[in-house]
Amino acid sequence: MIRILGLDPSLSSTGWGIIEAENNRIRYVADGFIPTDSKMPLPERLALIHKRLAEVIEFYKPQEASIEKVFLNSNAVSTIKLGMARGVVLLAPALFDVSVTEYEPNKVKKAVVGVGHADKNQVQKMVEVLLPGCHPKNNDSSDALAIAITHNAYRRSV
Amino acid sequence: MIRILGLDPSLSSTGWGIIEAENNRIRYVADGFIPTDSKMPLPERLALIHKRLAEVIEFYKPQEASIEKVFLNSNAVSTIKLGMARGVVLLAPALFDVSVTEYEPNKVKKAVVGVGHADKNQVQKMVEVLLPGCHPKNNDSSDALAIAITHNAYRRSV
Repeated sequence: MIRILGLDPSLSSTGWGIIEAENNRIRYVADGFIPTDSKMPLPERLALIHKRLAEVIEFYKPQEASIEKVFLNSNAVSTIKLGMARGVVLLAPALFDVSVTEYEPNKVKKAVVGVGHADKNQVQKMVEVLLPGCHPKNNDSSDALAIAITHNAYRRSV
Repeated sequence: MIRILGLDPSLSSTGWGIIEAENNRIRYVADGFIPTDSKMPLPERLALIHKRLAEVIEFYKPQEASIEKVFLNSNAVSTIKLGMARGVVLLAPALFDVSVTEYEPNKVKKAVVGVGHADKNQVQKMVEVLLPGCHPKNNDSSDALAIAITHNAYRRSV
């Protein structure tokens, strides 16, 4: 049995999701998102993301983590913002010695929805099907759960 | 008297520099850089930057920190890498309740060299002139000292 943390970084709302897996059987544990106020100073927004994620890791004690490979936006300002959130989000598991695996976005969609392209609502619906009893808090946390599900699908085939 | 931390983030080598200032009198305290091996997993590189910076802040106890506003590279891969390093670098002072002020790169050059455009070697030479006895470890740490000097120049005029 393994606990997997899925992470969907964003400066305005980082999603996280925890599942338990035993081979191909998976179970919902928890999900959430970390909203930050754009009026807060940038270092405080990053500190908020860091502290909340550290709390999640300390409380749920996942053994492995997963994240999507970065989506390179053509807008440099968006890219730097995503980069800053992503750096802080990747840091948290590393500080707790939890390994992080990166997956291409289309791999995540394929693992969860069955096709390489799907919108956030389709992902959320399939997450609810794959994790009975789970009603993700929002699209950010359902994306994070989808990334955790993907990690379980791929880690066994490596 | 105030201790100021200057920060020059980069995934491969983050520069840091500490000065002491009393009005327009400034004194060199310390400088350094945090090299990370590109062969290391990304989360571990970010964790190394975080841990070293936290050590610097705990040891030298700066009251204020400063950093350059981001230089938006047209290369999205470089931008995301810089963003991740920058997020982790901004996090460290925030976790110690040290405020961080951002300055435009040309403001830093103007404060240190006297003109808005200058190369890294010119910056290093002027840092050595402004901080007698200081021989910056490399261009990354001299850039960080330049940012600390800039913060002292501007914080008094606010």
